[in-house]
Amino acid sequence: MLTGNLFADPPRDLAHEQITELLSAPHVTIERIVSNGQASPPGFWYDQPRPEWVMLLAGAARLRFEGEATARLLKSGDYVHIPAHVRHRVEWTDDTQATIWLAVHYS
Amino acid sequence: MLTGNLFADPPRDLAHEQITELLSAPHVTIERIVSNGQASPPGFWYDQPRPEWVMLLAGAARLRFEGEATARLLKSGDYVHIPAHVRHRVEWTDDTQATIWLAVHYS
Repeated sequence: MLTGNLFADPPRDLAHEQITELLSAPHVTIERIVSNGQASPPGFWYDQPRPEWVMLLAGAARLRFEGEATARLLKSGDYVHIPAHVRHRVEWTDDTQATIWLAVHYS
Repeated sequence: MLTGNLFADPPRDLAHEQITELLSAPHVTIERIVSNGQASPPGFWYDQPRPEWVMLLAGAARLRFEGEATARLLKSGDYVHIPAHVRHRVEWTDDTQATIWLAVHYS
């Protein structure tokens, strides 16, 4: 039985986001992502072949969708369903605490 | 874009657990489950045809697996992967606060 805790030992002062795969199955992948102030590079947009259901467990982030005037502020417990190929970027994550995401990619 | 907050408006004093489907796709279902002190009936075991990845977002619970001597205490952030047909039951959930689960069933 695979077990763990999503809040355990979030890394600090990382140069990059830390992505930990929690489940990998043919049609679904679950990841924990820890951000410490990172954002998407200027002009970069995610354009993913699979839909993603993502929630913020801790911290704060601003998620921008192409075509929307402003970024959405996400706080603990907020979730968003991102259909395949809906372009989006992380405009900001809080650099005063670890921002922990739970991402479910599926097909 | 489907959005919401997992901690929003947890019901209190329910006679039963409240299950809210957050995502339904051919190979994956995501649910929020809110317990207010409920447990599985005596002698009842879940025996599910699909594997389940489940985490506790808030509250506390004891999850018992068949063949294990004691129940596992789950607190906020704890997750467990339950393979298909691994029999298990909820022995206890905290009745002083809402216990909020995030369950991902997949095939």
